[in-house]
Amino acid sequence: MGTVQTISDYLIQQLYAYGVRHVFGVPGDYVLRFFHDLENSKLKVINTCDEQGAGFAADAYARMRGLGVVCVTYCVGGLKIANTTAQAFAEQSPVIIISGSPGTNERIKNPLLHHKVRDFDTQLKVFEQLTVATTVLNNPETAFQEIDRVLTAAVRYKRPVYIEIPRDMVSMQIVPRQMSPMYRETSDPHVLQEALREAEDLINAAQKPVIIAGVELNRFGLRDALLQFIDTTNIPVASTLLSKSVITERHPRYLGVYEGAICHEDVRAYVESSDCLILLGTFLTETDLGIFTANIEKGRSIYVTSEKTSIRYHTYEGVHVHDFIYGLLKANIRRREPDRIPHPEISSQFYPVTGKQITTKRLFQRLNAFLDDTIVVIADTGDALFAAASELSIHSAIEFHSPAYYTSMGFAVPASIGIQLASPKLRPLVLVGDGAFQMTGMELATVARFNLNPIVIVLNNGGYGTERPMLDGSFNDLCVWQYSRIPEILGTGKGFIVETEEQLEDALEASRKHTGSFCILDVRLGRHDYSPALQHLTSMLAQKISMKA
Amino acid sequence: MGTVQTISDYLIQQLYAYGVRHVFGVPGDYVLRFFHDLENSKLKVINTCDEQGAGFAADAYARMRGLGVVCVTYCVGGLKIANTTAQAFAEQSPVIIISGSPGTNERIKNPLLHHKVRDFDTQLKVFEQLTVATTVLNNPETAFQEIDRVLTAAVRYKRPVYIEIPRDMVSMQIVPRQMSPMYRETSDPHVLQEALREAEDLINAAQKPVIIAGVELNRFGLRDALLQFIDTTNIPVASTLLSKSVITERHPRYLGVYEGAICHEDVRAYVESSDCLILLGTFLTETDLGIFTANIEKGRSIYVTSEKTSIRYHTYEGVHVHDFIYGLLKANIRRREPDRIPHPEISSQFYPVTGKQITTKRLFQRLNAFLDDTIVVIADTGDALFAAASELSIHSAIEFHSPAYYTSMGFAVPASIGIQLASPKLRPLVLVGDGAFQMTGMELATVARFNLNPIVIVLNNGGYGTERPMLDGSFNDLCVWQYSRIPEILGTGKGFIVETEEQLEDALEASRKHTGSFCILDVRLGRHDYSPALQHLTSMLAQKISMKA
Repeated sequence: MGTVQTISDYLIQQLYAYGVRHVFGVPGDYVLRFFHDLENSKLKVINTCDEQGAGFAADAYARMRGLGVVCVTYCVGGLKIANTTAQAFAEQSPVIIISGSPGTNERIKNPLLHHKVRDFDTQLKVFEQLTVATTVLNNPETAFQEIDRVLTAAVRYKRPVYIEIPRDMVSMQIVPRQMSPMYRETSDPHVLQEALREAEDLINAAQKPVIIAGVELNRFGLRDALLQFIDTTNIPVASTLLSKSVITERHPRYLGVYEGAICHEDVRAYVESSDCLILLGTFLTETDLGIFTANIEKGRSIYVTSEKTSIRYHTYEGVHVHDFIYGLLKANIRRREPDRIPHPEISSQFYPVTGKQITTKRLFQRLNAFLDDTIVVIADTGDALFAAASELSIHSAIEFHSPAYYTSMGFAVPASIGIQLASPKLRPLVLVGDGAFQMTGMELATVARFNLNPIVIVLNNGGYGTERPMLDGSFNDLCVWQYSRIPEILGTGKGFIVETEEQLEDALEASRKHTGSFCILDVRLGRHDYSPALQHLTSMLAQKISMKA
Repeated sequence: MGTVQTISDYLIQQLYAYGVRHVFGVPGDYVLRFFHDLENSKLKVINTCDEQGAGFAADAYARMRGLGVVCVTYCVGGLKIANTTAQAFAEQSPVIIISGSPGTNERIKNPLLHHKVRDFDTQLKVFEQLTVATTVLNNPETAFQEIDRVLTAAVRYKRPVYIEIPRDMVSMQIVPRQMSPMYRETSDPHVLQEALREAEDLINAAQKPVIIAGVELNRFGLRDALLQFIDTTNIPVASTLLSKSVITERHPRYLGVYEGAICHEDVRAYVESSDCLILLGTFLTETDLGIFTANIEKGRSIYVTSEKTSIRYHTYEGVHVHDFIYGLLKANIRRREPDRIPHPEISSQFYPVTGKQITTKRLFQRLNAFLDDTIVVIADTGDALFAAASELSIHSAIEFHSPAYYTSMGFAVPASIGIQLASPKLRPLVLVGDGAFQMTGMELATVARFNLNPIVIVLNNGGYGTERPMLDGSFNDLCVWQYSRIPEILGTGKGFIVETEEQLEDALEASRKHTGSFCILDVRLGRHDYSPALQHLTSMLAQKISMKA
């Protein structure tokens, strides 16, 4: 028998045990008591300008640290993070949504309490669509068990879960039952053995095996195992758009990002001529597959994710990705002589041309030279993502983050808050289009308040550059902000206007030295200056927009 | 037989027929073709910084004009407006949500297309919780009928509806069937007659009848009928928080806002001593009822809304609020001699005290004198709403807007866009706390882009002032912005810092004259300087936050 604990204390204790140290959110009266308890706990509360910012920050934190938490009030807070939760679901980011709600004692006779939509469970029903587990802690007898159940689901599936606490339950005291052990799933040993044997035979028989390392290796903490496997076998590895930086992109056996017709031609040719594709933790999404132009034949593939394991045309039930990869390490896979492979261009030099207008191409060349292993790149949707994915060579593992599959705009600035709190030694380099910046960029106020120091590059081309090449109109235009003057609004930070290569050089160098607060570079690009990657992408996407009329 | 039309053309034509002239939204590739069609139609596209802004703007537009439209892309756009749609549902604002989505031809084999969450219908399922009707226009044979069905539902119930257009359907051509007539519901004549007869008897027998005029009178266009009823009978009228300005607050028979223990004591006493309360279009919400402190006895009430009609303890099925109110006008209700009633203080004078620090109380006194019938007040949640509701006396009908029941933060600035486009002759006076401003205030960029000119009063008290008196902590603090310098970011607008009464006077007078763009006043209030209304409210709300631990 343990000592008496409140529901609030138990939840906080379990989050801490899972490695959580920060909680992102915006308070409101239905969740105020829980915020108060958070503030008096070992967790630190990071309140953002808007709930959307908290949702994105928690998602980023989860990507970096294995679990993220966003805490909001009922409906007016919770429903603001429907989109960020959907992103976490789509991209397998284990975010715990904690929402306050009206007390169980306030719900009798179904009154029209403030923040209520249709019924008291409207918000719950919405989150049932967007999470892998939900609970309303309205029963003290089962509350601890319910907390364990949903936290376990988040860890198992690496997807968001929803915990609603009616406010009269927050301080409810209970004697906790035996604490449940942390979750650890295992495979069926027979199935696993057969799958591994077949994989071993296939890989050893292949002339030109290639690993495509997916984002699940990040989510399930399997990067080191992957690295060991590559170093042991010398099999080359590509990442996908979503898993970029799953290993250092400086690794000699690293090919680059593979995404069908959109990626570098030499990477595409090498991958698609492989006679044994080993897809580890890779979801076959549209963006990862270059709008489905990728050529991945099942008949020559080994495919292992948390949801499915298949080799060629048959599947194995009950194999966990973790066990499979550690099994591969122990299997008798032959070591190969390293052949010549495509490899990202690595440059640490950039020579600005005096007076030359800055272009997207040259910007990314310069940024590539700017990177080192203290910098984590966070790319928002648009050319910020597509150019970065193809042009930047990341130094260390998980130093590149983006919403590469779900592609919601507005992720990068709030994500930098989550990333830097999760990894204080890294400095975020935020790449964000002007359109995305106008959605959530003012979360720089939160950056300022908590003394973080990202370098924010605004790719300013006066509108929605990803859409213009598909179908243009005044709806792709925006009010032009003086982004470099935002420090004047926030009372901290350093702003730069960048129109030429020299100004870029100077601004980046000054930013590197200015570590006391954030820096923001308003990089003024031509209205129709797109990276080759974006040009490829949009020309394919444009075909999908029905034009018959 | 009509001529051939596309689904897009038909939808646009029907929106126009219902009086819509502006569509708010943010484009994205799944909805790009429809945006293109909108731009080439008689409707004007207003693209905002973030979808949240578009959602609030459309809600405000609907309140002013009878129907509002927000147009977004699939999931990454749509799920960002879950909260604004919930607000429209809760407060009966007929907003049409139009979302693009993957083409029906792209959904075969359930691929992982970008922006997809769990299934292709995830977004639909979310909006089923938040709207009164939904449709996916995936069948050309029924598309026109479906459009009619959901638009009719929006008009009937004054609540949001959801229309999803797979992108390969946008330009699909069909021969339309006979256009459906606009919706008009009628009551059961026998039931109506009996209800009216009983109401007539009750009202005529009463010593002190009082009307409580609710927000439905706005929504269903019944303000003129109400006014006529008051003028004919001299029965005094109160509004609720949500319906404030349903009639001019200068009307001699207007009592004030009634909201139980929170409102002015004389209004409360008068209303609660009535022997016949006539509640017309009034929803009995928590905020309207002053956290349920209102004393409304069924046994002395006539209660008519779009959802329910009851007199004393029995109900009448099949009575429409419209028919009931027009019926009352024709009924034989006796005219009374006007007695002395409570009435809002009306002041057109304000004398600033030299060097005196500005306070909430004095700010609202000054704003009350600033109002005239060219100004529409838009109040965000917090003291912006509660002080305004009790201290400002609105000149003309529907010149006060707020999310008084759902109380989501971040409404006011984007709402000013919707309000001013709906009523170009009115100038919005936006009252917004610093917390709410930090959520959506940068939609001033949209204000700037479309040449609107609201006057924005930021009630700057350094955090969440509504929460501090309930339970304070550093989570109620915010980064302090230099709000008056936002014009420098946007390249237009005029900013003012207001610390004293004289500065307030000068800034308001300058703002009145400066009509070419928006004005923003950073009004620096004491950290714990709350209006009496907010003090009442928060002391009651604080009791609901469980403190036992």
